[in-house]
Amino acid sequence: MSRKSLLAGFCVLLCLLSAFNSETLSARKRGGVVRLSVPQRTAGQKSVLGLRKAPIDTVRVGFVGLGMRGSDAVVRYTYIPGAKVAAICDLRNEAVEASLKDLRALGVPDPACYGGSETAYKALCESDDVDLVYICTDWASHVPIALYAMEHGKHVAVEVPAATSLAECWAMVDMAEKTQLHCMMLENCCYDFFEMTALEMARRGVFGELLHVEGAYMHNLDPFWDAYWNNWRLEFNRTHKGDIYPTHGLGPVCQVLGIHRGDRMKTLVAMETKAVNGPKQVEARTGKPCEDFSNGDVTMTMISTEKGRSILIEHGVLTPRPYNRMYQVVGSEGYAGKYPIRQVCLREGSEEGQKPDYQNLAAEKIYQGEELGALLGNYRSPVLTPELEALAKKVGGHGGMDFIMDYRLVYCLRKGLPLDMDVYDLAEWSCIGELGSISIENGNAPVEVPDFTRGDWNVVDGFSYAF
Amino acid sequence: MSRKSLLAGFCVLLCLLSAFNSETLSARKRGGVVRLSVPQRTAGQKSVLGLRKAPIDTVRVGFVGLGMRGSDAVVRYTYIPGAKVAAICDLRNEAVEASLKDLRALGVPDPACYGGSETAYKALCESDDVDLVYICTDWASHVPIALYAMEHGKHVAVEVPAATSLAECWAMVDMAEKTQLHCMMLENCCYDFFEMTALEMARRGVFGELLHVEGAYMHNLDPFWDAYWNNWRLEFNRTHKGDIYPTHGLGPVCQVLGIHRGDRMKTLVAMETKAVNGPKQVEARTGKPCEDFSNGDVTMTMISTEKGRSILIEHGVLTPRPYNRMYQVVGSEGYAGKYPIRQVCLREGSEEGQKPDYQNLAAEKIYQGEELGALLGNYRSPVLTPELEALAKKVGGHGGMDFIMDYRLVYCLRKGLPLDMDVYDLAEWSCIGELGSISIENGNAPVEVPDFTRGDWNVVDGFSYAF
Repeated sequence: MSRKSLLAGFCVLLCLLSAFNSETLSARKRGGVVRLSVPQRTAGQKSVLGLRKAPIDTVRVGFVGLGMRGSDAVVRYTYIPGAKVAAICDLRNEAVEASLKDLRALGVPDPACYGGSETAYKALCESDDVDLVYICTDWASHVPIALYAMEHGKHVAVEVPAATSLAECWAMVDMAEKTQLHCMMLENCCYDFFEMTALEMARRGVFGELLHVEGAYMHNLDPFWDAYWNNWRLEFNRTHKGDIYPTHGLGPVCQVLGIHRGDRMKTLVAMETKAVNGPKQVEARTGKPCEDFSNGDVTMTMISTEKGRSILIEHGVLTPRPYNRMYQVVGSEGYAGKYPIRQVCLREGSEEGQKPDYQNLAAEKIYQGEELGALLGNYRSPVLTPELEALAKKVGGHGGMDFIMDYRLVYCLRKGLPLDMDVYDLAEWSCIGELGSISIENGNAPVEVPDFTRGDWNVVDGFSYAF
Repeated sequence: MSRKSLLAGFCVLLCLLSAFNSETLSARKRGGVVRLSVPQRTAGQKSVLGLRKAPIDTVRVGFVGLGMRGSDAVVRYTYIPGAKVAAICDLRNEAVEASLKDLRALGVPDPACYGGSETAYKALCESDDVDLVYICTDWASHVPIALYAMEHGKHVAVEVPAATSLAECWAMVDMAEKTQLHCMMLENCCYDFFEMTALEMARRGVFGELLHVEGAYMHNLDPFWDAYWNNWRLEFNRTHKGDIYPTHGLGPVCQVLGIHRGDRMKTLVAMETKAVNGPKQVEARTGKPCEDFSNGDVTMTMISTEKGRSILIEHGVLTPRPYNRMYQVVGSEGYAGKYPIRQVCLREGSEEGQKPDYQNLAAEKIYQGEELGALLGNYRSPVLTPELEALAKKVGGHGGMDFIMDYRLVYCLRKGLPLDMDVYDLAEWSCIGELGSISIENGNAPVEVPDFTRGDWNVVDGFSYAF
């Protein structure tokens, strides 16, 4: 080969190198976004958007995990019309016995009981006497149990956060799509009164064009850490970065924005403080210095959406501060905020039946206290029938919202309707922890949020409840 | 050349390509941070940290810009002990006359008057009868006037934001360092009662180790846009991205964190919503479609500090919502928040004279209402003497905070003390707009915040007032 052809070879390579270079630079110009691959669907797997299943007359529920949340849920379900506590399970036999005692005190027939080992849930999932597996275990075991339940033909409802990693989120989506079963996360904050009312106001256009929303989990967990079996929750905080408990903040505002119902989360950036109180909590329990506590005392996550809106969520469970879920909706014509006091602000003319006057943009009004109560009364959620509200207040559970959530879940299963929250909500709201961790570990780099619907995020037009 | 040596050539290039690749990846791993160059100091230029100047017995003030803020300031200064309204200037003669009328009504001697052209300020800056040039013009003219004043040996005080770009921030720092003159931004929110008290609590360690702070400017400006000369403020919003009005939110919390007094802002990421109401405001005034409105209706900016703390600031001036500066301080032992209601939360044992008990982390208490008033009374700012407070309340100006700010400025000049806020504060708080714009235009990329002290950010130990 001649010197000339060698030169030609070099030129080709230099061109390749330069093409590579410009491609890399253009990637950097687009902000050095971290992109994550989206797995392919396997043969036969298909979307569960708007999934409808045959109605179930009496929904037989099997509860796995009878700790703080699960033991309450078992009792609550005895009040849900059309639901039956069919089975209960916990790896600690004493927890099974305690729930059994609760049920007997209520005069309810004994459910099937499973317990005594970490795999006891399998028999419950395999049982022919269960329609829905209701999972309230520690976060790490949510997904294995949910997958096993779906593999055995059961619908599943899973406590928050349903999944703790991207891989787990995809596993849940894939299994729900393969088995065509319901897989819902139990995000109770979507059923709190103010959130449901603000959602209804947003759906009816009262806030105008939606622009920005906020949510948070600000709750000093000092009194709670020791209540978690084997201290798993503190341990999870020790070993994971990012907003690891994002769903209470995110769920209600994602419904407002209609995430995967006409809009989608696109880019996420997270930032955290150093870990100061986290290590102290470990040290107080072990008596040894803790130098490997991952989760910052405060974590912020910003998310932009396809339609040019923004979401802020915050996480702070380690410092003394007032409980705050930061629920906030900002629209072109109005505002709703819940913490520390409930406020709605509307441009005059934004209420239904009135026309906004852009020549008179100054006219706005803050509603709080009694006046707010009257305003909210005009936008009751269609879900909240007076009967349901009265029953929910009687049974309780976080001020009634747990009961309303369970009631809706059973209602939809009994009517064969799509559930209020689907497996894509579950994945979208749960993936934030690992995505934030990737952002933080990459110097607060922007990270692309995967489209768990694989292209169908714009098929449904806005959030709605099925009846 | 043989086929073998061609192959060898290819191998070398492939190695180069692979090295390039891994270098690029490691850059991406560091998050694709946008780094900005720091200009060198010129000969003779030196730090103005802790700058002390010869005491000025009577501070002769020349006011430039007699619009909404300036005309109030002129009147306010007639009440400041040791200050004299020496000169007033506005490009509109009618504004000069209106202020003159105000002064005469107060029985104050006539100041020198300058006006009628856009360069009228020059004669004021050149005058030998002025010690301090007090600038309340539109944002775009702050820096030219301030630089001219310092060039002519005058101290300057500049309304917020003092500078609108990184280049302007550096120009202000460089000029102050060259001339060794005071150059202070008039960030009045640093002198609001709750902020000053919380700062005192933070300084005395009540909140424990400081972790996270928040601030904002959430204020629907609908009723105000037309009050700005030639509509400059709306126009600035139309032509600039990012948090262009960050200083009210940022100033007070930067004092709490001791920014460039032991800590520094390190990395910033910003995110905005689409512009929905901005274009409508322009369209309402021009009658034509506006498709080039830059500033989003809501902008969020997250900032991490050298010491592992975080700052959140928000900007929203275009949608109907309650006024909110979001002032919030989160520490390992306590919390203070101002909006929409004032709250302090402390771990029991965090108040002075008590020792935190880490075995009893659960004990915390929320102070609001009357109980909060009593608590705050224990942490009065040393600045706020009863005499000053009474005078401030009488004179007014945003609830007294404008008066306290001016009082402190004149007090320090009269005693030859360092001012509460220096030119580095001015640059740090003002640069956020352009840095956020860079972040947004690079897909929410992290951007390094320049160290305007050029290495001295850790020399001073915490914020303090000079007496």
